[in-house]
Amino acid sequence: MEIKVLKDILGANDQMAQNNQQLLDKHNVFAVNLMASPGAGKTSLVLETIKGLGGKVRTGVIEGDISSSIDSKKIAQEGAPVVQINTGGECHLDASMIRNALDNLPLADIELLLVENVGNLVCPAEFNLGEHRKVVVSSVPEGDDKPIKYPAIFLIANAVVLNKTDLLPYVKFDAGKFCEAVRGVNRKVDIFEVSCTTGDGIDRWVSWLLAQMGRK
Amino acid sequence: MEIKVLKDILGANDQMAQNNQQLLDKHNVFAVNLMASPGAGKTSLVLETIKGLGGKVRTGVIEGDISSSIDSKKIAQEGAPVVQINTGGECHLDASMIRNALDNLPLADIELLLVENVGNLVCPAEFNLGEHRKVVVSSVPEGDDKPIKYPAIFLIANAVVLNKTDLLPYVKFDAGKFCEAVRGVNRKVDIFEVSCTTGDGIDRWVSWLLAQMGRK
Repeated sequence: MEIKVLKDILGANDQMAQNNQQLLDKHNVFAVNLMASPGAGKTSLVLETIKGLGGKVRTGVIEGDISSSIDSKKIAQEGAPVVQINTGGECHLDASMIRNALDNLPLADIELLLVENVGNLVCPAEFNLGEHRKVVVSSVPEGDDKPIKYPAIFLIANAVVLNKTDLLPYVKFDAGKFCEAVRGVNRKVDIFEVSCTTGDGIDRWVSWLLAQMGRK
Repeated sequence: MEIKVLKDILGANDQMAQNNQQLLDKHNVFAVNLMASPGAGKTSLVLETIKGLGGKVRTGVIEGDISSSIDSKKIAQEGAPVVQINTGGECHLDASMIRNALDNLPLADIELLLVENVGNLVCPAEFNLGEHRKVVVSSVPEGDDKPIKYPAIFLIANAVVLNKTDLLPYVKFDAGKFCEAVRGVNRKVDIFEVSCTTGDGIDRWVSWLLAQMGRK
């Protein structure tokens, strides 16, 4: 019974995700779904990405949170169009929430849409949003065993961004072990080591993003 | 429809949680549910708590993970009885998983049961396990805004442990702001600042735990 209902929900979500992608494609908007634990640095990565793009790509943002508009205020300060979704308890974004957000974004004026999912390394993996790429943000203080403990989300990722590398001297974290664990789940995924605090590695991540969009 | 099914699930879970607590009480076992983001340091806190208790209290552990038995191996090395639950995708522990684990623990030989939930700051808040106390573990690198963004889990906590205080010099984190945010959600909750790396603050946390158990 429970499973049946879940299947129905996921089926309906996939349908709506396809509709979202059609709408995005119609406006030539490339959408990226950023998924991570709470506090891994998704918002900082959004901010550094916008800075790193240096105005080359017009970027919009959807901020997903259970509660508050702290993050969307930070984005708005950068001058990017942003819509805040408060899920009110839901542990993930779904396609219907994204559809509502798209209706409130100036799609004709955007080329790249960064979607910050709810901080959760489990549930967002199950819900397609209509995005073109899925990216997992992991962070050094979380430990190098996360891909082993939360394999599903690493499995579906097109890229993994390892954030907070500036903290490597202060915590027990083996970057080689982390990459090996990621590749154990997802052999081909691209991995980027960055620090949103120092800016290290952001250029490589931004280059990847531009290449995925078919831009230089 | 979806909500009705969810209510049924939660109602059945609460009933089973009550049964779990009766079973625990029958054996004079005091159970604590540790909830946190992935990588906040739940396993480290379990290990430091066992060390901090210094053999005064016979402690058993239930390790909840989606996948792997990394954590239970660490606990077993300390000589504590431990049962690993692999949820196989589920984003939280529930009362029926705990019941199965209790059947595999030597309850007559345990006074304290530490239950490490799946790393998730959202979903575990909804599922009672039959525990006597709920504790949220937060960590400095996650940022001081977590109580504002994930209020539900802080609301139901009997205590909040702020871990990784050894990283305070290296990250932007305002401990006063964090405590204020916690109190904004849950006025009376006890907050403990600890570092499982240096051992700082563990004594206060352990004293609280003993007091909750009615021990000195």
